[in-house]
Amino acid sequence: MAKNETDQNMTSEVDDIVEDEIGIEVLVGDAMADGDPETVLRIIDDLHYADVADLLERLSREERGQFIDVVRDQFDPEVLAELDDTVRDEVVGHLGVREVASALSELDSDDAVEVLEEMDEAQQRAVLDHIPDEERTLIEESLSYPDDSAGRLMQREIVTVPSHWNVGQCIDFVRRIAEEDEGRLPSVFYDIFAIDARHHPAGSIALSKLMSARRQVPVTEIMDEDMHEIDVYTDQEDVAFLFRQRDLVSAPVVDRNGRLVGAITIDDVVDVIHEEHEEDIMRMGGVIEDDLYEAAISTTRARFSWLSVNLLTAILASVVIGFFDATIEQIVALAVLMPIVASMGGNAGTQSLTVTVRALATKELTGSNAYRVISKEVIVGCFNGVIFAVLSGLVAWVWFESVELGAVIAAAMVINMIVAGFSGAAIPIVLDRMGIDPAIASTVVLTTMTDVIGFFAFLSLAALVLI
Amino acid sequence: MAKNETDQNMTSEVDDIVEDEIGIEVLVGDAMADGDPETVLRIIDDLHYADVADLLERLSREERGQFIDVVRDQFDPEVLAELDDTVRDEVVGHLGVREVASALSELDSDDAVEVLEEMDEAQQRAVLDHIPDEERTLIEESLSYPDDSAGRLMQREIVTVPSHWNVGQCIDFVRRIAEEDEGRLPSVFYDIFAIDARHHPAGSIALSKLMSARRQVPVTEIMDEDMHEIDVYTDQEDVAFLFRQRDLVSAPVVDRNGRLVGAITIDDVVDVIHEEHEEDIMRMGGVIEDDLYEAAISTTRARFSWLSVNLLTAILASVVIGFFDATIEQIVALAVLMPIVASMGGNAGTQSLTVTVRALATKELTGSNAYRVISKEVIVGCFNGVIFAVLSGLVAWVWFESVELGAVIAAAMVINMIVAGFSGAAIPIVLDRMGIDPAIASTVVLTTMTDVIGFFAFLSLAALVLI
Repeated sequence: MAKNETDQNMTSEVDDIVEDEIGIEVLVGDAMADGDPETVLRIIDDLHYADVADLLERLSREERGQFIDVVRDQFDPEVLAELDDTVRDEVVGHLGVREVASALSELDSDDAVEVLEEMDEAQQRAVLDHIPDEERTLIEESLSYPDDSAGRLMQREIVTVPSHWNVGQCIDFVRRIAEEDEGRLPSVFYDIFAIDARHHPAGSIALSKLMSARRQVPVTEIMDEDMHEIDVYTDQEDVAFLFRQRDLVSAPVVDRNGRLVGAITIDDVVDVIHEEHEEDIMRMGGVIEDDLYEAAISTTRARFSWLSVNLLTAILASVVIGFFDATIEQIVALAVLMPIVASMGGNAGTQSLTVTVRALATKELTGSNAYRVISKEVIVGCFNGVIFAVLSGLVAWVWFESVELGAVIAAAMVINMIVAGFSGAAIPIVLDRMGIDPAIASTVVLTTMTDVIGFFAFLSLAALVLI
Repeated sequence: MAKNETDQNMTSEVDDIVEDEIGIEVLVGDAMADGDPETVLRIIDDLHYADVADLLERLSREERGQFIDVVRDQFDPEVLAELDDTVRDEVVGHLGVREVASALSELDSDDAVEVLEEMDEAQQRAVLDHIPDEERTLIEESLSYPDDSAGRLMQREIVTVPSHWNVGQCIDFVRRIAEEDEGRLPSVFYDIFAIDARHHPAGSIALSKLMSARRQVPVTEIMDEDMHEIDVYTDQEDVAFLFRQRDLVSAPVVDRNGRLVGAITIDDVVDVIHEEHEEDIMRMGGVIEDDLYEAAISTTRARFSWLSVNLLTAILASVVIGFFDATIEQIVALAVLMPIVASMGGNAGTQSLTVTVRALATKELTGSNAYRVISKEVIVGCFNGVIFAVLSGLVAWVWFESVELGAVIAAAMVINMIVAGFSGAAIPIVLDRMGIDPAIASTVVLTTMTDVIGFFAFLSLAALVLI
């Protein structure tokens, strides 16, 4: 890889990365349009594999095909692991089974698994058949674990030493493997693991500790016995929580018999953290899955279900309004003002909901403080309810020159804001207890609640007081 | 630290962590109520510092004070760095200046800075005055860099070696520091840095590479020259992007003269990733900052500003409805149906907005694909617009027995869904170009748009066609 030429006159390297790519994408597109593969190869020669992946994602469908044909012989296997699923699917199709298999053989097993698990079964089988036996066995074992489990996330290449060794023996051992068979070492590692006779992990040894100790020190003296073994079936979300909670960089993975089978490293966990966050954000916005690179038609289909749920709840709110059509006919100002009450409730509720959903996701909210969180949100709802009752009451009074109308909207506002605070906190907690993902279902339940209560409180009070 | 006793009968370790804490919180609360400090100390003796921090967060205000008094003499400094800001403020107040200063002296400089930067100036000064000179100078230097910069994030304790050394010299050097003055080593490290005569970084040397090479190999042979130096003024968000993009575990930080001043490690970056995600989620939900541990009154104040912006936009929508009061008076069904159009637009727009805001945050959306993203969202808006036009048109037709009313709502629905798709993608992109955080401002602009257009399209078409 070429040394960054802007080194002396350093601006933010990140801006360079992003700006370079904008330029590069255009350059690559132009070069391909001109039928000039040499230029394309020269450009990508300097790029980090993650940047090649980004470049591929930004190219159009047709350009991607041309690009693959040009770089086929020099395709960096690492690029595959970095691609978005939709784009990777296309790239894999273009590369062909043989090329993909040989690319995957060069990757660490966890990266190979990441690519393979997204393929359909036939394609996965075809690719696996072209991967050398030894590597394939490791990959197939990982694939036998459930989706999103620690078994899928771990790499099989780890360094293990008997727990009765000393520091010098460990260092010599690592040097010998590095010389004899580098493929057995992970591409980077931060710990090695001491195991007992039954292949159970006895402790993890941070390389910085190994470095700092004299050769004759026994590993038992510098190893960390409290090393957070992860069961191979643990969900990746729990793995991420553990890493963050304990500031881990790597952790051993054990099978059901307690035998050490692999290790999970922080770089994979960072990806999991991103995935989980993405899921949360997307679901709260009513999107099932990030669909940035999907075609318009499949995006339409994916978003349809959420919108149709929303149509039903909107009709429900309309039915509530329908009860009061006679009242609205007499006082049309009610139709003008009613969205204010519903909308303020929806927004205040969304605030409570956001804080609560997030606290559930980070496990800051558990059984023991749920009551405290809900009551706080109710109190905040009261406070803001009173403030906005006064404000909206004044607006209604001045606008329609009716104190009574002002009083009605004020009363409805207080009611709806309290309901919003309560529901915003309680709905996600209840959904979570019921085993339903609070991020995906809370919003729709909440807005139904605040719309229905908002319209009903306002219109029924009006019917009582004003007519 | 005690070895986990559930080792043999291993369930998910994470469940253990969370469940333990629920139990522990109650146990600790009870023990304090009984005036039994020994039990409290015995319980927390087995806990990881991150769990002690969680425990503190879950205790009530009064219990926190009692707890600090009990553990004062055995207070683990690492706990401070793990606490939520609001809770930490309280704990720091309880501990007192001297205890806090002595705790901070024991932490790596980056963790000490994290605690200090949240204090007000007088308190910061007071604590700094009690920290030993050498450590204080390092901390003060870090604090002189802007908030959220790489300079605040980096740790000053790094291992540097001249680039003309060989592997054996490096290992001996690390061993010597470890024996003579362990405080000069970071508590864990993954790389050491080779520097030239001007103290500029020449390359980073992964410990796993150092381990695997023979003693006589020169470091220039195993060091990575393309090591992504980070300018000390780089924003932490860009640092996080760089780490994720390049799968980094640590990176050197250089000052404006290119001299190596520190290193950033992945554990700090994971915290930044969480912070940034939290900010995005909170802002999209109309919450300025996570306020889970804030008192109700300050939460009310913080959320008030967002709600008052929302009140203004809701009034704007009401004004639009007000233009058509005569029409509504004649056909009250319009008041019943109008929220459907507005709400569907709002939800479809939020879907587009969520995907776009997220793509901007992950830098997947840049100048070159903005146009493609917007046009795709418009097409999706068209498709879903037509589908929901038919559905809502049928509902209106059947409900109010009027084909014309059905046609009006259908037409308004198509218009509003297209506007929603366009605005959902375009608003965040435009805000981002203007240097405004798209996560915070997009939602309010979008819902104003879809409300106003939704009501206006529906009511004005009704006024034209039906009257």
